[in-house]
Amino acid sequence: MGLIGGSLAWGVKRRELAREVVGVDRDPASLRYAIETGMIDGSAGLEAAVRGADLVVLAVPVGAVAALADELVPWLAPEAVVTDVGSVKLRVVERVGSVIPRFVGGHPMAGGERSGAAAAVPDLFDGTQCFLTPTARTDPKALEVVERLWNGLGATVVRMDAAKHDEVVAAVSHLPHLAAFALVNAVAAADPAGAALAFAAGGFRDMTRIAASSPEMWRDICLMNRDPLLGMLSRYADAVGRLRELVGRGDGQGLLDEFTRAQSARRGLRGGSG
Amino acid sequence: MGLIGGSLAWGVKRRELAREVVGVDRDPASLRYAIETGMIDGSAGLEAAVRGADLVVLAVPVGAVAALADELVPWLAPEAVVTDVGSVKLRVVERVGSVIPRFVGGHPMAGGERSGAAAAVPDLFDGTQCFLTPTARTDPKALEVVERLWNGLGATVVRMDAAKHDEVVAAVSHLPHLAAFALVNAVAAADPAGAALAFAAGGFRDMTRIAASSPEMWRDICLMNRDPLLGMLSRYADAVGRLRELVGRGDGQGLLDEFTRAQSARRGLRGGSG
Repeated sequence: MGLIGGSLAWGVKRRELAREVVGVDRDPASLRYAIETGMIDGSAGLEAAVRGADLVVLAVPVGAVAALADELVPWLAPEAVVTDVGSVKLRVVERVGSVIPRFVGGHPMAGGERSGAAAAVPDLFDGTQCFLTPTARTDPKALEVVERLWNGLGATVVRMDAAKHDEVVAAVSHLPHLAAFALVNAVAAADPAGAALAFAAGGFRDMTRIAASSPEMWRDICLMNRDPLLGMLSRYADAVGRLRELVGRGDGQGLLDEFTRAQSARRGLRGGSG
Repeated sequence: MGLIGGSLAWGVKRRELAREVVGVDRDPASLRYAIETGMIDGSAGLEAAVRGADLVVLAVPVGAVAALADELVPWLAPEAVVTDVGSVKLRVVERVGSVIPRFVGGHPMAGGERSGAAAAVPDLFDGTQCFLTPTARTDPKALEVVERLWNGLGATVVRMDAAKHDEVVAAVSHLPHLAAFALVNAVAAADPAGAALAFAAGGFRDMTRIAASSPEMWRDICLMNRDPLLGMLSRYADAVGRLRELVGRGDGQGLLDEFTRAQSARRGLRGGSG
């Protein structure tokens, strides 16, 4: 019943995509809140919730998916479909897919720096993209069920190989988050009293908003997506080092070339100016 | 008549802070646009505009301020006050202050990645902060005139030593811009066909919006604010290198510590959650 699980449950209820939505959470306050707001029809313990389910959505930090899947295997109905929402896929689909053939790896591109049930909204996924990463052994019917779920929530489904997915998100999601964490730490270290940060304007705020994200979630992502992320961090360290060298030797033309290249790539983004 | 000069002129007109506002621009189309929209009362060549002026605002790229100031010295009335809007101050106030005693260095914290007269708005500075960086030889009456201008436009004036100003903006403005340029270039280099960038979500877009800024302006800023910026780039390279090392050796606790530190510093920003 966090941001993703709560929003998903709420969207399913609102759009009547399931007969009954049962929430599971270790935190009783989140469950009460979810019931009061109408995100879910009711709550249950993990075993009871899994035993009655046609579809089980594991909306937990990506580092916890595999252990949770192991735990619920004995209680799964034969036809039950299982999916997750974590932002790293290769290790998850290899591991969970080997014990649950009707498992489909999923990753909705939505969320941001807020977290918890209180941040959930029923239309979080409307107009977003959701990756599904089936493998050779994924049951096609299970894939269809999960695809229908996300389409029903208003998301566009993108099927992608899990390894490719992890490289894509290392570049466009994981690296930017780490760059923002590093930026805040570098500025805070140079400015221990916060005298400079008091003057932080829009650019700094925009760039570092994602540094307010959950540290635990990002630790898990870094550990699970180590190799693609290392590759991107090396490229990024090179790009930062190149700018430092150009600034150091006052190379105006070199700086202009770097900035022009970035401007042109940024403007090429769909909706890039917005 | 760019974003800053045009918005300033328009704000002065709207709030009736001057009897007459005369615009100067090399581009006739910008001047026509500024007259048609009512940003300025009229336009003139540089000499005619300066000869009649009580207050001259040099709203040009920071690398061009000194040469422009030299050019207009012969035409300045004895009581005329001169100010600029560039985001680097030490070299400008030393250089221009030595030839124009009634020069006051200024730097409004507003703008963003848009540029040009078409992006100007009359309330751009309302609710923002504007740095003024007087030196020991700045005429107090000139400082008062410029302070009144910015207060009249709705900005809060912050007086700061020019060297200190340049360190502050290196940290909270110049470094974040360079980090965004480097981020776009690193991702684009890893993804020449744009396959990954097609999936860039909100975080990446937020972080790299400022990479669409004018390359020429940022080249000038890097050259003019070399030493403070080099210091911040070194700190940043260290912070990125530290994350790369922690990811490389799978140090979950070390990553958690870095992310927690960043989250706490980011949340400490005034209006940090917004």
